[in-house]
Order: sequence, then structure tokens, then C-alpha cells
Amino acid sequence: MNELGVVRRSIKRADLSLVDKLAAFGVATAHEAMGRIGLMQPYMRPIYPGAQVGGTAVTVLLHAGDNWMMHVAAEEIEPGDVVVAAISSECADGFFGDLLATSFKARGARALVIDAGVRDVKTLTEMRFPVWSKCVSAKGTVKATLGSVNVPVVCAGALVHPGDAIVADDDGVVVVPAERVQETVKAASAREANEAEKRAKLAAGVLGLDMYKMREGLEKAGLKYID
Amino acid sequence: MNELGVVRRSIKRADLSLVDKLAAFGVATAHEAMGRIGLMQPYMRPIYPGAQVGGTAVTVLLHAGDNWMMHVAAEEIEPGDVVVAAISSECADGFFGDLLATSFKARGARALVIDAGVRDVKTLTEMRFPVWSKCVSAKGTVKATLGSVNVPVVCAGALVHPGDAIVADDDGVVVVPAERVQETVKAASAREANEAEKRAKLAAGVLGLDMYKMREGLEKAGLKYID
Amino acid sequence: MNELGVVRRSIKRADLSLVDKLAAFGVATAHEAMGRIGLMQPYMRPIYPGAQVGGTAVTVLLHAGDNWMMHVAAEEIEPGDVVVAAISSECADGFFGDLLATSFKARGARALVIDAGVRDVKTLTEMRFPVWSKCVSAKGTVKATLGSVNVPVVCAGALVHPGDAIVADDDGVVVVPAERVQETVKAASAREANEAEKRAKLAAGVLGLDMYKMREGLEKAGLKYID
Amino acid sequence: MNELGVVRRSIKRADLSLVDKLAAFGVATAHEAMGRIGLMQPYMRPIYPGAQVGGTAVTVLLHAGDNWMMHVAAEEIEPGDVVVAAISSECADGFFGDLLATSFKARGARALVIDAGVRDVKTLTEMRFPVWSKCVSAKGTVKATLGSVNVPVVCAGALVHPGDAIVADDDGVVVVPAERVQETVKAASAREANEAEKRAKLAAGVLGLDMYKMREGLEKAGLKYID
Amino acid sequence: MNELGVVRRSIKRADLSLVDKLAAFGVATAHEAMGRIGLMQPYMRPIYPGAQVGGTAVTVLLHAGDNWMMHVAAEEIEPGDVVVAAISSECADGFFGDLLATSFKARGARALVIDAGVRDVKTLTEMRFPVWSKCVSAKGTVKATLGSVNVPVVCAGALVHPGDAIVADDDGVVVVPAERVQETVKAASAREANEAEKRAKLAAGVLGLDMYKMREGLEKAGLKYID
Amino acid sequence: MNELGVVRRSIKRADLSLVDKLAAFGVATAHEAMGRIGLMQPYMRPIYPGAQVGGTAVTVLLHAGDNWMMHVAAEEIEPGDVVVAAISSECADGFFGDLLATSFKARGARALVIDAGVRDVKTLTEMRFPVWSKCVSAKGTVKATLGSVNVPVVCAGALVHPGDAIVADDDGVVVVPAERVQETVKAASAREANEAEKRAKLAAGVLGLDMYKMREGLEKAGLKYID
Repeated sequence: MNELGVVRRSIKRADLSLVDKLAAFGVATAHEAMGRIGLMQPYMRPIYPGAQVGGTAVTVLLHAGDNWMMHVAAEEIEPGDVVVAAISSECADGFFGDLLATSFKARGARALVIDAGVRDVKTLTEMRFPVWSKCVSAKGTVKATLGSVNVPVVCAGALVHPGDAIVADDDGVVVVPAERVQETVKAASAREANEAEKRAKLAAGVLGLDMYKMREGLEKAGLKYID
Repeated sequence: MNELGVVRRSIKRADLSLVDKLAAFGVATAHEAMGRIGLMQPYMRPIYPGAQVGGTAVTVLLHAGDNWMMHVAAEEIEPGDVVVAAISSECADGFFGDLLATSFKARGARALVIDAGVRDVKTLTEMRFPVWSKCVSAKGTVKATLGSVNVPVVCAGALVHPGDAIVADDDGVVVVPAERVQETVKAASAREANEAEKRAKLAAGVLGLDMYKMREGLEKAGLKYID
Repeated sequence: MNELGVVRRSIKRADLSLVDKLAAFGVATAHEAMGRIGLMQPYMRPIYPGAQVGGTAVTVLLHAGDNWMMHVAAEEIEPGDVVVAAISSECADGFFGDLLATSFKARGARALVIDAGVRDVKTLTEMRFPVWSKCVSAKGTVKATLGSVNVPVVCAGALVHPGDAIVADDDGVVVVPAERVQETVKAASAREANEAEKRAKLAAGVLGLDMYKMREGLEKAGLKYID
Repeated sequence: MNELGVVRRSIKRADLSLVDKLAAFGVATAHEAMGRIGLMQPYMRPIYPGAQVGGTAVTVLLHAGDNWMMHVAAEEIEPGDVVVAAISSECADGFFGDLLATSFKARGARALVIDAGVRDVKTLTEMRFPVWSKCVSAKGTVKATLGSVNVPVVCAGALVHPGDAIVADDDGVVVVPAERVQETVKAASAREANEAEKRAKLAAGVLGLDMYKMREGLEKAGLKYID
Repeated sequence: MNELGVVRRSIKRADLSLVDKLAAFGVATAHEAMGRIGLMQPYMRPIYPGAQVGGTAVTVLLHAGDNWMMHVAAEEIEPGDVVVAAISSECADGFFGDLLATSFKARGARALVIDAGVRDVKTLTEMRFPVWSKCVSAKGTVKATLGSVNVPVVCAGALVHPGDAIVADDDGVVVVPAERVQETVKAASAREANEAEKRAKLAAGVLGLDMYKMREGLEKAGLKYID
Repeated sequence: MNELGVVRRSIKRADLSLVDKLAAFGVATAHEAMGRIGLMQPYMRPIYPGAQVGGTAVTVLLHAGDNWMMHVAAEEIEPGDVVVAAISSECADGFFGDLLATSFKARGARALVIDAGVRDVKTLTEMRFPVWSKCVSAKGTVKATLGSVNVPVVCAGALVHPGDAIVADDDGVVVVPAERVQETVKAASAREANEAEKRAKLAAGVLGLDMYKMREGLEKAGLKYID
């Protein structure tokens, strides 16, 4: 957040094999395993349904109406990365389209997460290059002002350091700090372990009230049943 | 709206066979038949397209960030119900996911209508458990504070009493008070009766201006045609 | 914007064969070819994905909650037109449904663009009558107050004169003034000409930094690479 | 919510002397005394700061862009009333200005609460006729469609029955059902009783942690202090 | 809307003495006299209350995050002008502060109307240089991209031609096309003529129902009075 | 962002005498001196006009509808601090009122900056305890869930570390990292140095075009003057 005109070349990425494990759990589980933090705001939506992606963050800080740094970011992409784009003030322009997607994909990027607009969504959908964005907009941008690449950014309310794990699916986007990926995978695994059993019970008609033993707590809190 | 910590067990539900008839007309027609009232705000959107549901309301009043009462509501569900969840202040958290959906479905619920967020939407879509919500969010909730079940609630701007008929489709969600379901079915039937004929005329190129005899009214109102 | 209660019958439409050429480029390219102006606000979304439409504008100015003039507009439609509906103040009601769509389609309209709500979206989707709107709403309207047809309107932030070219796809809606269609087609063609080549290069891993020769400019602007 | 074209003439108003007592506590305290329910959404703001009002609700249901029923409501006003205006769908038009305010004031109304726009705010401020509204807008309305007066309405997310107590100040607007006014005054009084003492302690530097004996609960919940 | 990089030097301004007359009526009356059109969206608010301004429009079209053209616009200002600034896509940055205000004021500008942010509002308030804006923001802008001056613009939903009359007060901002100023002054005068009489009647307790003779119309529309 | 249930007791605060110098420049200048970053989103508004405050950040991370940690934060306040409150998901409840303000003030806090609602604004205004908030809301909160104190937080889009400098005035709120305060004061001083001279020139009618020597750049960019 505190450097402009800077590109950090050497970043420490989260272990991609762990990130992949985390991504398999999906956003809701990863976010719970994190302790219910790290989620981007719910206005971040995928341009097509069904994509489920994990990767390591290459961050880019842009200015309203200016996508120059996107091209700078492209060079920093390594296979397995997800580009996370923040704007220095709210903007709904379309900073990204099919040409940049072709470039990002060629470099190995798995997705784009951008707190702004995206365009050429039909082509991006055909390419299966997933984007989570604030909106869709054909509004073009200029290339006139420096931002930064691989500095910490705030994207859709979430702090992202370069190299952090990004998990995104139909439920949204969650950021897991690189140093916490291992413990989060562990916590997510533990969480998932007995989900199948729970699901089976609930499907059989057992109530959460009983399965989670909530009745006593509710009564103690003063819940009254009336006719 | 005026009781907290209360679960009403015996509610008078609208006649489900009538509710089913109403649901077959869809939201737009049911809403017109009601006299253009009872509609929830248009930000209430289905998590997947194509669902068309009718049911009787089990209402639940929750607090921001707390889904404890969802489990209490589950026990009150009877086959044919639609759970209607209101929050005591605006909140976009994800109060509902696939485990609760499994439970609700097992109890016979047909859908959830919630003035907040929902998560696990991919799984919910696969389960074909429809949800109309304000947004999608993976943000988890706690279980700490009492709300109420089966009290009158305001959900997305509409007043819902327990037992009221809920109709929801791609156009949104409408509430029909239990005591007005019969007359609304009747009005909707009357409305639909000559729609096929109208549609055929319009498809043949007849103008609404002529079919509805609007020309005189427009002229009287002062409409001028110029070149 | 300055006449109420008026219907202009004779409007000069953009050359439809040129409009069709422009539509084939899509919204993003047409908008760039225009000089990055003329785009409607990004909240204008299609009711179903994949539609790509071009046409000549028949404009209609409505009042909040009143769709009377839609029927007046229907009579002014000629094959190849797109109806562009503006509301004199913000309104989310559903001004348009399947009956009007049947009528518009019978008259030769290719689409509706409306800065308000639309309903019967399931049927409209089945009919393949595309609509770009601010929202979906079943809220019905009355027929009580005069607006105008074929006057200049501001729709979703864009000025539209009757007869202007409208291009709409998954990226949004752009307006091209009738007198600028020819030059815009030309500019779009020029723009597209070398896109295939660029795309091939980018797909092969060439960076935009090199392809667009940006490195010098960035360095001159002060960009620093650090480790 | 379920009757259009109806004016209820005889409504049971909350005891005005109790409402006045409640208003003296202000909105925050009344809302807490109610059990944290009954509050309108926070977008409802006063047109000038400093007004603190209590009164009994005369309700009016209007349609988007149409203020006809405001004149019908005027006749139902008795001294001590607050007019509560709901719109059947979201609308930001200016339904109310200085002429209506003159009329309402002459009838004894103390304020207007409207889930839409208001105009002539400079004059209203000079008249000291307070209005809580969604916005300020000069947009005029028509007089063409029937709504209702003194039916239950949902205004800015809160259910209001005719005769309910309305309390409004710089913190917003709260609704207290007529039958709960007495107990709410009592609860508010109890709440206020030891506020002075609490305030003195806090002003002297005593921490809420100690005054409210929170330390044990926090520790039990797992709070950790680190350096 | 259709020219970029252009400054029109010779524009035809509305007669300032007529604009002053119109401004004296205020926005609500001017807007009604126009036929309820020409109003900017209600999110346009003054930075301080009480200002009431009329002037002739100098228009400027800016790009997101770039205020270069503001300086170009300054040179085109003549005494009596109001600068109207539109942005080619939604932006909340602070395009204008006390230095530009000093310059605009020195050139004779009476106010700024901007569909974006403004800063230094404390100083602007002390200078009594009124601004109507979408928001207040300290976010600075760059000077890199050409827009235009004195071309038609859409500002906050309203079409403004250079030279049009702008009236702004606490109720918002209205645009009156230069060629319609005279007739609007006339219509506004007629409208105001009997307002004093009406106000006196209403203040005396006469109902609008009677004064405007609405009872018959309401009855005919089906209004029912019940107990 | 990555620790819950934690209170950091020893934080390194920015030098308060430097923070005071920075605050004297105001938000717009401090933000420019920072390189146009660090600004909170423009929806953060003061509850009363005219306050201009600088201080060192004590941060608190709260959950929707739960203000328990505010009391924990109170103990960490030292004279000269500004409390910065972030919520783990969007919430408009009133987390703060006159009792907490009394406590914060007694501890030496200069202001509160909160990405949520505040209540008792009349009393806070009388106390002259300034608050910058997203909204005003009387909605009360519970005390049930742990958050954290003095961890890095994202507040209204800006990253805040405990001890950072906060400057707030009528233009909004800016965050300056503790380690950058000195250089920012310097840059702000340099910026201000010739403002008086510039202002005098502009007031005398000199154009920014000439003072900033923009004419050449504009011409080079292609600006055309036409009649």
C-alpha cells in the first residue's frame, strides 16, 4: 500500500501443492478454517459459474481508468499464479479483456481477481479463463500513470500480500496468508472429516438442534416455545 | 416483529393445493392478481435460473452475523414450507449452506428466501434446493443470540406472516397473505384466461394501442404526433 | 429531453447494414472505435448470456411506475430497431414483460434496452427476445401519464437520439450517433485488423511490454524494479 | 399491506403522553428498550439536525411517482400525529414540499417520515417541520393512482401500524407498537436510571471492562494478551 | 458526447438576467415549470446548505481520475457561468479543490456542478464557492488524458448543452435548455402567482382535498372510507 | 488481518508531534504528500463538520453486530490515539455511543474512525468527540464474539497498522504508515510552501494553463480549439 512505481521481482510464494489442496475444499471451508477472516467482499462475482481455482498472488495496484501496470504484472506471472488487481480508488472500468487474458494465460496465470470491471467476458468464458470482478464493463482504460506490482494491496476489502494463497469459486474469493496455508489446510481437513457423517444424519431427518446439542444452550438463553 | 426469543409452534398455513395453483401462474401474475403489492425488493435473486416454487412460510428472524435460529426453524418445517429469513439489520453474511439445506430438505422445505447471503451455491444448485437471496457470501456466522421463529417479519421490504403463501421464480418473490390466497388464485385465473388470445393478436401485429383501446385516452391526455 | 407528450413519427435511422457490421465487432470494440465514449453504465445487464445485437434506436421516455408510452412506442417500431427506454427518475419497476415483447417482436424489434426493471424473464429467454436492463422486477406499472417517443433521452448515463446505432452484448450497451456509424465501423475494422496477430504473439508468450514497446515509457515515468 | 384504495378513519392511537415520555429518551434508548427491534433502516435521515420528535402514526401507502394519497392522509391527521409514508416500490422522487407541510402542520402533524424523497427542504427547515427521508429530490409527482391510508405499511424496513408510536431524532426512526408503548417507557426509564452513574465512572477513567465485569467472560472466550 | 479533445470557444449562453429570475424561484419550481424534466439525480448534494445559484453552463468532460481539462475549462469561464463537469465513467475522486475554486471564482464562475468528488470543502465553504457533487473525496487526480470543453455532456443523468441555464439549491440541480429559459420563467411565475394564497388557505386548515377539488376524482377512482 | 482473539499491548506509535504537524495540513495535502495513497473510501463522513484531527491508531477488529472488543480497545488507548474500528463483514449497526465516547475520551482518545454505524450523534456532537463513520444508526449490538485489538486491519478500504498516523477532517480520513510520517510531513511542507503564491496568482486571474505551463502538453496531446 505504501509504494508507487515499484515492481518487486522476487516474492515468496505459498507452496502451490498446499494451495491446490486448499482450493479443493472451496472458499467457504477455507474461510472457516482461517477463522472466518480473509474473505473479499461479496460483490466479487465470477464471470461464469462453476470455476474453482487456487493459486499464488501476483498483486498489482492500478489507478482509476488506467491499466498500464497490467502489462508490467504479466511479466511477473509464474505458472500457478492468480493476479490480484486493486485500484487506488473505486472504479468500474474494464481494465482487462481477451488480449490480456491470452497473455496472462500464456504466462501460466490461472485466474484474475480484480476490484473493478472486466470486458470481453464472452471470449473469456470460451477461453475458460476465470475472472472474479466487481462488474462487467466495456469501458476502456488509458496507459499513463504508474502503479505497482507485488506490493501489499487491499482488494475488495481484503489485504493481499504477494505470494499469498488465493482460493476462488462460486461463493467468492478468500485470501490465505502464505505463512498460514499449511495450518489452514489442516484445519480445513479436520472440518471436512466429519461433514459426510453430519450430512447423512441431517439427510435422515436428524435435527441440527440435536446433532449439535443446541437445545440446552437455547433454553439457557431464554428461548420460549409457544402455541 | 415484536417478539424476540420466541418460537411459535402452531401456525395456520395457507391451503397448499391453492398455493400450488398460485405458484403455477408465476410471480408476475400472482403479484398483479394481488393488486400489485406484496413483492419483495428486486435485489432478491435466485441462485440458479429456472426454479419456480410455491410454499407456506415458516418465518425466522435472525441477527446480523448469527444463524443460530436457522436450526430452531428447521424443527418447525413441514412438507411444503418455504423458509423466509429476515435479519434485524442489514447483513450480507452467508447464513445458510449445504448442511442446513440438507436438513431443510429432509424436513420437507421447498426453498429458502433470505434477506442476506447464502453460500455453497454450487452444491445447492446440484441439490436443486432453490434459494432467493440478497447475495452470495462465504462469510460464516456465529450462534450466540436469540431471534424468533414464526413471528411476523419484514423480509426485503415485504411483510410476511407465518403460514402466508410464498411464490418465487426468476422474476422475484411475492408474498400472498394466507387469507387472500383463494381470491388471488381466482384473480390470477381470470387474468390468465384471455392472455393466450391477447398474445396471439399481438404476435399477429395488432398493436396494444388498438387491442386495449388506448388511443382515445392518449389523445385526451394531450399526446401529439409530429413529424 | 425537452418535450413531453410528443411522438416523433419520422426519424432518420442509421444505415442498418452498417449497424450490423458494427454489431459484429461487439460492444468493447465499437466503444473503443468511438473514442471510449457512448457506453451505458455497467449496471445494464442482459437477461440471458450470449446475445449480441445491433439495431437503430426508437427511444421512449417513461415516468416512474408508468409504462403507458411503451404501447405508443410499439407503433413506431420498424424492423431492425432496438427500443431504448429511459425513465424520468430512477425506478426499478418491471415496465416490460412477455406480452409487450410479443408485440415488439412482431413489429420487428430486435431488443429492448431499459434503464429500469423487466419481468417474465423466463419467457423472454425462451422467446430469445434479449433485454438489457437495470434489474429484474415483477412490479407492475400503471398507464396514466404521458411521456414521449423518439425524443433524445439519457439512458443509463448515455445520450441516445432516435435513429442512433445501438450495439449490445455481454459486455454492455454502447450508443453510436447515426452520423458517426460509418467512421466507427471503419475504425473498428482497423482496430480488429491486427488483433489476430497480436493474440497469436501474446499466446506464444510475447509480453505486451515488448509488443507494445512500453518499457521505455515505463522507465521514463520512473518505474523501478526491486528484489 | 393488503388493501389498496382504502382509508381507515378510526384508528387506535398510542397514548400521546406516553409517546412524549418515550420521545424524551431518544431513538437509541427507545430502540434498546424495545429489545433492539423496530428500527427503520439507517438511510432514513433528518433534513436538518437537532429535531427530536414523538408522535402517533398516520400511515400512507403511495405508488412510485404519485403523491395523490398525501392529500387524503392530510384529512386523517390529528394533533400529535407523525405521518409515515411508504412507497409500493423503491422511488426517490420528491413526494412532499412546503405546501403539504403547511397543510400537515395546520392539522397538527409533528413530522413526516417517508421512504422516498422530499423537497423545499430550505423552507421546511425554516418552518421547523422535521422530515426523515431517504433523500432530497425536487422531482415532482403526479396524482393518478390510489394507494391507502391507515393500513399497515412497511417503511424503510420497519412494519408500522396506524396508531403506533414513532420516535425520531438524529440517530434515526424507531417504531413502537401501540400496545408496547407503556412497557417500553418503563424499560427505557430503568435503562436510563443508572446511566448518569455509569457516565460519571467512565468519565473518571473506570473501564467498561471493569464496570461491566467483562474480563472473566473475555478470558473464558479465549482472549489472549500479547506483547 | 461525441467529441474528445475539443474545446468550443464560442457558445451561445442563455440570457443571464432571465437565468437570475429563474434561480430566484428555486429548483423545485423551475423543474415543475419545465414539465418535470431536466433534474439531475438526487445524489447531487451541495457541500454546504443554503446556497441558491443560477448561471450559464460551461461544460467539461473528464476521464476517471484525471482533472486536466478543468484547467482548460477555466479559460472558457465568463462571469455568470456555472461549470458542469461530467466524467466519462463513474468516479468518486476529488477533481476540484480550493486552488481551482480560486481560479474559477476569479474568472467569474458562480458554482461548480460535478458528477464526482470534490475536496477542500472546509475552505470552499469559507470562500462561499458552492459546489454540488456526488461526494466529498480527498483523492487526487492526474493530468494525462484529453477530454473536452463545451460539448454536450450527460451529468448525473441530465443532458447539458453549453450555455444552458443551471439552477441549484438545497433541493438539487436542474438544467433548463437555453432556448426554453424564457418560457420557463413565465411558467414559473404563473405557478408562483397563487402559491401565497394557497399557502394561506392550507395554513388555515383548508384541505388540499377541497382546495384542489380532489374528492370527486378519488371517489371515481374507487377510494373507500371505512371505520 | 490474521489473528482473532488477540490483544497486542505494546505497539510502536508514530511520533505524535509529527502527527500533529501532519494533521495541521489536512487530509487532502497529507494524502497528496503520501503519493495519493492511503485514503479511506469517501463514504467515511464526519458526524459534524469542522473537526480536524490527527492521532496514532489503536485498531480494533469487530464482527457484525457485536461491539464487545470496543471495551477491550478502551484499555489500550493512550492520550493522542485515534481508535480505528474495522468490521469483519459489512455492517451498518451502531457500535458506538455516548457512554463509550465518554470512556474513550477519558482515556485520551481524540476520535473514532469506524467502518460501520455510530449513535447518540447529538450527544457526541455536544461532547465534541468527533467520529468518522459509514453511517449513523441507533441499532444496538451484542457482546458475544471475540475480535482483536491492535492487529493490522482494513478499514474502509485502507490498511491500518496499530501506531500508524491517522489524519481526518471534512475531506475524509487518510492513513500514513508510522515509518513514513516524517517524510510525509516534509513532502507536505514542500507542497504547501508555494501554495500561497499560487493562490494569489489564481485569485488575480492568472490561469492554471499558464501558471503550470500546460498549454504545450495539451497541444501535443492533440487538443483542438474550435468556434
